[in-house]
Amino acid sequence: MNVEQPLVPAVSRSRLEFLFDGVFAIAMTILVLELRVPELTFASYLLSFGMLGILWYHHNRQYHHFRVITRSMLVLHFVQLAAAAFFPFCASLLGRYPTNGLSQVVYISCILVYVWASLANWVIAGRSGSLGSETAAADFLRSRNKLLRGCLALSIVFFIYLIRVLAN
Amino acid sequence: MNVEQPLVPAVSRSRLEFLFDGVFAIAMTILVLELRVPELTFASYLLSFGMLGILWYHHNRQYHHFRVITRSMLVLHFVQLAAAAFFPFCASLLGRYPTNGLSQVVYISCILVYVWASLANWVIAGRSGSLGSETAAADFLRSRNKLLRGCLALSIVFFIYLIRVLAN
Amino acid sequence: MNVEQPLVPAVSRSRLEFLFDGVFAIAMTILVLELRVPELTFASYLLSFGMLGILWYHHNRQYHHFRVITRSMLVLHFVQLAAAAFFPFCASLLGRYPTNGLSQVVYISCILVYVWASLANWVIAGRSGSLGSETAAADFLRSRNKLLRGCLALSIVFFIYLIRVLAN
Amino acid sequence: MNVEQPLVPAVSRSRLEFLFDGVFAIAMTILVLELRVPELTFASYLLSFGMLGILWYHHNRQYHHFRVITRSMLVLHFVQLAAAAFFPFCASLLGRYPTNGLSQVVYISCILVYVWASLANWVIAGRSGSLGSETAAADFLRSRNKLLRGCLALSIVFFIYLIRVLAN
Repeated sequence: MNVEQPLVPAVSRSRLEFLFDGVFAIAMTILVLELRVPELTFASYLLSFGMLGILWYHHNRQYHHFRVITRSMLVLHFVQLAAAAFFPFCASLLGRYPTNGLSQVVYISCILVYVWASLANWVIAGRSGSLGSETAAADFLRSRNKLLRGCLALSIVFFIYLIRVLAN
Repeated sequence: MNVEQPLVPAVSRSRLEFLFDGVFAIAMTILVLELRVPELTFASYLLSFGMLGILWYHHNRQYHHFRVITRSMLVLHFVQLAAAAFFPFCASLLGRYPTNGLSQVVYISCILVYVWASLANWVIAGRSGSLGSETAAADFLRSRNKLLRGCLALSIVFFIYLIRVLAN
Repeated sequence: MNVEQPLVPAVSRSRLEFLFDGVFAIAMTILVLELRVPELTFASYLLSFGMLGILWYHHNRQYHHFRVITRSMLVLHFVQLAAAAFFPFCASLLGRYPTNGLSQVVYISCILVYVWASLANWVIAGRSGSLGSETAAADFLRSRNKLLRGCLALSIVFFIYLIRVLAN
Repeated sequence: MNVEQPLVPAVSRSRLEFLFDGVFAIAMTILVLELRVPELTFASYLLSFGMLGILWYHHNRQYHHFRVITRSMLVLHFVQLAAAAFFPFCASLLGRYPTNGLSQVVYISCILVYVWASLANWVIAGRSGSLGSETAAADFLRSRNKLLRGCLALSIVFFIYLIRVLAN
């Protein structure tokens, strides 16, 4: 993005990064605390660990572009963190009731909240000029569209599962 | 503040920051461990997560101004950390007994201890010359008065709830 | 290694280091959560703490040589982290059923997954040119062979325990 | 200390610091997980939180002087970390059985292991030349003697409690 206006940082980049990585490290590790036979099956543990890993990886790639964390970006980061910290609960629920429609909906909705907040973060960062000038407009749009497609695809999955639950 | 006397740091700024962020990341994440139906309602989880987020954010803005961590500031930081680490217990109590007066008083008193320690930290930092010279006296006083108003308002809320409990 | 071609980093070195240390710190600390008499004997706690310490130490020595973290190295790091985060569960199982063959097999297989992923990481780093030029080819091969010998020795132990379980 | 010989670092200073702070942050926060009425009284929580805070503070002051972490210092650090990670268990035990002699002995012995390892760390660092040249021999000896007095005093307390338990 070419906008290079002076922005007021809400919070230090490195400390938010720190809090973020901390919450992910803990969420990944406490997954195992829920691993009581038959509460969380081993498959659910691996699935959830991999999911947290993918979300963490995408945050890394996104965060790299943020020059400054504004107040609205901070709020969206807290939404992402709340979803990530909530994830072990969803994993435990899915492990205990793997075929239950409601536990599947809760699991998907947790990821859904995370990815939409991630998309909002990216769009707001682009509009407010938080992205550094080395992030070209074309790169910004490509990433935004990729995120948007992911969000929409997951939303469709979410609604299919939701309708299945409501239909019963 | 204009006082620029040499201060003896009790502890490295970055390591205290690290411990602080670590305790907050963990407190935020273990909130979910208490989330057993019906122990902690989902509303209590979101409220408590948001509360920890706000406290963490305010600490960031405050910590930014501290040039040096003196021994009394370190002690006050430990009071803040003890309150933050205690918070998941309060959240679990409130989620289990949301209408119980005592659990409300415990929840509020935990935040109250935190914010008064935060105010004390700010005042002591100002008096001891720990604030860098780029923090003007006017800024110091404005922040102090804002914190003081918050502390007093929360104290009033606390006493109202306390009296309600004692009256029953 | 002499190969000095430009590599695309998948993720920042310091943030992966951070996540790694975080997961290890938490796995080490939550070992104690499982320490209920007679679930995890004190001997199992010390053994498992020491094991995590040794794995963390070896990762430090290895990570030091990585110039860039490529995508396949990131995936292997997540395999290592999943094994480390899974370790408290294995320790708890072994503490509860110390003489049970299956709990011994699970415990060993968790370490086995970790060390093979560690070896794969080292080999891939060497081939992709992620190791800095200060890491000589002889050093690379010596470390690889040492790791390989460890992996093979542990695999033999694993199969002995596995056959003992299957024989019963 | 004046010895300035080249030492082989076993591990990076900052990563050990990181692991250390992580374990302390988690140990402090999971104290509250054990806080179930009447398992851990509130007094035991505050006592244990304060104790961990004091140990963390002293480690900070000590670590500041270490130029290089040698292999024997790393092993001693793991002994300290194992004691710190074990602390929430001791605190829970003391909170549940505050008047029981054995739970008092376990609690004290955990701190005892920590402080003796801390003293050993200091002495080994001094002898191996890990302390920077800015640490004068007089400062080294003063700190060592202070630590030694603390270790001996705590050992006496430990033996008094141990004899009381064995006498019953």
